[in-house]
Amino acid sequence: MALRFQELSQEFSLQFNKKHFPEKPETLYGAASYMLEDGGKRIRPVLCLLGNEMFGAIRPDTWKIADALELFHNFTLIHDDIMDKAPLRRGRATVHAKYNESTALLAGDVMLLRSYEYLSQTDPKYSRELIGLLNKTGTEVCEGQQLDMDFEKKEWVTLEEYLYMIELKTAVLLAACLQMGALVGGASLQDQEHIHAFGKNLGLAFQVQDDWLDSFGNPHTFGKQKGGDILSNKKTFLLVHALENAAVPTKKSIRDLLVTNPPDKVETMIRIFRETGVDQAAQQAKKNYMDQAYDHLNQISAPAIRKVQLKELADYLLERDI
Amino acid sequence: MALRFQELSQEFSLQFNKKHFPEKPETLYGAASYMLEDGGKRIRPVLCLLGNEMFGAIRPDTWKIADALELFHNFTLIHDDIMDKAPLRRGRATVHAKYNESTALLAGDVMLLRSYEYLSQTDPKYSRELIGLLNKTGTEVCEGQQLDMDFEKKEWVTLEEYLYMIELKTAVLLAACLQMGALVGGASLQDQEHIHAFGKNLGLAFQVQDDWLDSFGNPHTFGKQKGGDILSNKKTFLLVHALENAAVPTKKSIRDLLVTNPPDKVETMIRIFRETGVDQAAQQAKKNYMDQAYDHLNQISAPAIRKVQLKELADYLLERDI
Repeated sequence: MALRFQELSQEFSLQFNKKHFPEKPETLYGAASYMLEDGGKRIRPVLCLLGNEMFGAIRPDTWKIADALELFHNFTLIHDDIMDKAPLRRGRATVHAKYNESTALLAGDVMLLRSYEYLSQTDPKYSRELIGLLNKTGTEVCEGQQLDMDFEKKEWVTLEEYLYMIELKTAVLLAACLQMGALVGGASLQDQEHIHAFGKNLGLAFQVQDDWLDSFGNPHTFGKQKGGDILSNKKTFLLVHALENAAVPTKKSIRDLLVTNPPDKVETMIRIFRETGVDQAAQQAKKNYMDQAYDHLNQISAPAIRKVQLKELADYLLERDI
Repeated sequence: MALRFQELSQEFSLQFNKKHFPEKPETLYGAASYMLEDGGKRIRPVLCLLGNEMFGAIRPDTWKIADALELFHNFTLIHDDIMDKAPLRRGRATVHAKYNESTALLAGDVMLLRSYEYLSQTDPKYSRELIGLLNKTGTEVCEGQQLDMDFEKKEWVTLEEYLYMIELKTAVLLAACLQMGALVGGASLQDQEHIHAFGKNLGLAFQVQDDWLDSFGNPHTFGKQKGGDILSNKKTFLLVHALENAAVPTKKSIRDLLVTNPPDKVETMIRIFRETGVDQAAQQAKKNYMDQAYDHLNQISAPAIRKVQLKELADYLLERDI
């Protein structure tokens, strides 16, 4: 039998598969629709639906909000792909690669506008709060993306700076999705804060795991090239932690690897990560975040049976190898 | 003595000259602030303030909305400049030229988010309507920009298509600025529609004039290079009208000019425009739009004395040579 989040993901995908935009100009809306056909895991709308369900039956408005959040997420992906000059996303040409950068830029813009439009259509008794939350979260996501780009040019990034960046870039949107659903479901302000904190910590744990998997995951189940982050000198939890905590000679070895790009760069870096205990540190950080997440989940004043679905989703997202 | 719109422009600029963004990340917010320092004529916020004033004293909320509209306008300028690869705007380096395209893209995004934030802070009794109007208008502006880009690649554009494009790209935002101010000032729905229609026709007249000035304006007072649109083969009212209405041999001459780019391209094209009566057609179109604009202005149920300021602004914008 499918788990609840899997049912909701399927149900969401079915209802999301509709016309979100008019026909014309077809260059613009063709590009926007192309992005949405992509599918993806629809994690964010599902979090919103589960956030509502913890406090009551899913309301029609929550489906609208789930649409808004999926559109918002796709807006960030289109613009991020332009900035990263990424040719592919999940095996398909990115929007700017298939169309052009200008159309992709505008397609992202109309997608953001449409997500506000969907939020505006919800009951006035909470639409104002929802829009306020999107204003705040959207701004934080942009700040996170800017910090991520800034880090590429910096030689030195502290672990604290890195964790703040992933909090903004990834975690706060997951948190906001849960909170919006909970708000509409009738959660108290305190429970909204707890479910937000659950989502934020879940997001941080997920990102740390993603960094860990790049070096230590099983490339067959992970689905990405092993050591891709190492090859591109990406500032990850592992690299930042090693540069901050390793002994001076090891730090120097790492710096040399970043500059010289030897053929055995990936293996050497992974060996250094292992020797300096960075893999353990990542596992510990992930565990700490998950402990905090579950602590907030436990404090929510809803029957334990209603919390099972979120735990199942968290387990699904986080029990990948690490 | 300064006219009312000039007073309001000055007053707006003074209060707008404040921190709209936090300090960090300074790469992102430095770029956003750089754009806003630019100044500009602040036409859109002034229209919003005048729209309010036609129906009553300017409310504190209207200043917030004026801020939102100026931010929205600057969001469109930053993104348009990226798409047009424009190196300069009003004599200064564009945001993407001074920083980089990625930061400019994100600076535009946070500016759009901030304009929603300002609208969200207004009285709930009209914030929902204001946000709905920004959703609609913003989407139309993006559609207009896409059509404008599409036209660059098309050999053949009808006058109807051209006018629809400038309506979306330029006119509807001016209309929305007036309507938002009127709404907060207490205008009836009917009066809101009239002031919106006034603004839309004013915008169309202004754009047709702008096209006319490129060929027939006094370069000293117009402030742009004469024939710049001709040199870049831009689809303007003049070119589109000529290609639609001229005799077949003249059409062929125009097509040849577009392809061969002779040294006397500008003078030859202007001569053709004159011979085919396109300059007269532009003047007539401008007059028709202004007649319609004033017709809507007259129908607004406010004392005539309250309409003087908008007429003064329209005269200022439209009595430039043509």
